[in-house]
Amino acid sequence: LGPLRPRRAEGPVTPATAILTASDRSARGERPDAGGPAMRAAVERRGWSVAEVRVVADEQPRIEAALKEWCDGDAVRLVLTTGGTGLSPRDVTPEATRAVLDKELPGFGELMRQRGLKSTPTAVLSRALAGSRGRALIVNLPGNPKGAVESFEAVADLIPHALAMLTGGDHANAKGAA
Amino acid sequence: LGPLRPRRAEGPVTPATAILTASDRSARGERPDAGGPAMRAAVERRGWSVAEVRVVADEQPRIEAALKEWCDGDAVRLVLTTGGTGLSPRDVTPEATRAVLDKELPGFGELMRQRGLKSTPTAVLSRALAGSRGRALIVNLPGNPKGAVESFEAVADLIPHALAMLTGGDHANAKGAA
Amino acid sequence: LGPLRPRRAEGPVTPATAILTASDRSARGERPDAGGPAMRAAVERRGWSVAEVRVVADEQPRIEAALKEWCDGDAVRLVLTTGGTGLSPRDVTPEATRAVLDKELPGFGELMRQRGLKSTPTAVLSRALAGSRGRALIVNLPGNPKGAVESFEAVADLIPHALAMLTGGDHANAKGAA
Repeated sequence: LGPLRPRRAEGPVTPATAILTASDRSARGERPDAGGPAMRAAVERRGWSVAEVRVVADEQPRIEAALKEWCDGDAVRLVLTTGGTGLSPRDVTPEATRAVLDKELPGFGELMRQRGLKSTPTAVLSRALAGSRGRALIVNLPGNPKGAVESFEAVADLIPHALAMLTGGDHANAKGAA
Repeated sequence: LGPLRPRRAEGPVTPATAILTASDRSARGERPDAGGPAMRAAVERRGWSVAEVRVVADEQPRIEAALKEWCDGDAVRLVLTTGGTGLSPRDVTPEATRAVLDKELPGFGELMRQRGLKSTPTAVLSRALAGSRGRALIVNLPGNPKGAVESFEAVADLIPHALAMLTGGDHANAKGAA
Repeated sequence: LGPLRPRRAEGPVTPATAILTASDRSARGERPDAGGPAMRAAVERRGWSVAEVRVVADEQPRIEAALKEWCDGDAVRLVLTTGGTGLSPRDVTPEATRAVLDKELPGFGELMRQRGLKSTPTAVLSRALAGSRGRALIVNLPGNPKGAVESFEAVADLIPHALAMLTGGDHANAKGAA
């Protein structure tokens, strides 16, 4: 699987990650955040570092602000969100994400829903998006910890390659691959 | 399959359904509507009630008007459209649907095309959308009766859960699932 | 597979094809174009004619101009692009394509990514679009020759049917199918 292993010159093999939990209840302290810690554990199991974690209410401006702050800074290359991908009236994470993305990556949402279908039929109801802003990648994940980890694992092997493409460091090869 | 069975408090297990046929020929009375009756039978086989049926020409304003009337009223929770999802110059049902949706549900179109592929390769050419407007769910289906029923069956088990999420009645669990 | 075989009245069985390579390096003459010749061979293996080939830099206005010129003229019914579908900063083919499409055909991108997954995991990173402009069909393919041919083969059997729908020559049946 050579093309999935970014070379040293292209950036860190262990992308610095930020994890954003979108949840009204957890932001108000009414319910412990479950998705965030589950994602931290999944990220660290891969040997990637977690640079920041944050919990915000399901408010589009707050979600957009966190995504922009992280993607436009230097400390973070990967932003994972958990929560707010469903159809409930307060679920606005995909809308917030679309508003800040430079380029949408439709294959990630497709693959997460398709893989999730095998164990969790309701994975089809996730409106999760993924894409790039500057040199950073944003991936939406469901709020349920099991679903979030399953969705992440469906695409995680592709993330280092996607990050290498974003830097444009190996345009010819990256382009060749996709 | 607990999560797919909405609880009593979240709304009716048998969503009140409206069926819209988009077809120039059927609207002019030149051809009997085949998609609409096929969908009525499929809906009733599930024990769901059919509240309204209508046939309109392939005109975007007419399709939008019917979708809005039903979604913004109290009598209908699910709107199924049949016809107008292809590439013919008069096929405008997805455009009309996108114009009225609050939230798009990409997984339904993906799953309908993927399942359809097994028996009907041309299912890939369907541009069917699904999503929510207010508390109602809209699902586009092809015009061909066999294709319409196959597409519906690919997602029908998920519809009660999607409707439960839309009411926000059980936000925590609904969110957990997607 | 009757519905996939367009009848004589609906247009040529062998769609006149134009092939556009988007590549900065090939446009500057720094690297021979590999995707374009690979696609020409794949198209001709099907007995379809290649009416035009062109290499342009990864500049959105240049790509849009070529797509419009071909789709709005009479000589070409199918435009295949190769390159520029990834996440590199210079990859803008899907943006150029979306800007000129009348109708997007989401099932082609989904199917190309899904089929590609089996042999090339990075196929998921392709943001390839497809859709119609007037009576012509545009299909984005990756820049890598192997990936481009694999993606094309995933959808090629459906292209004659899609073109028949676009002419609206057999609206009733075409609609029935999708």
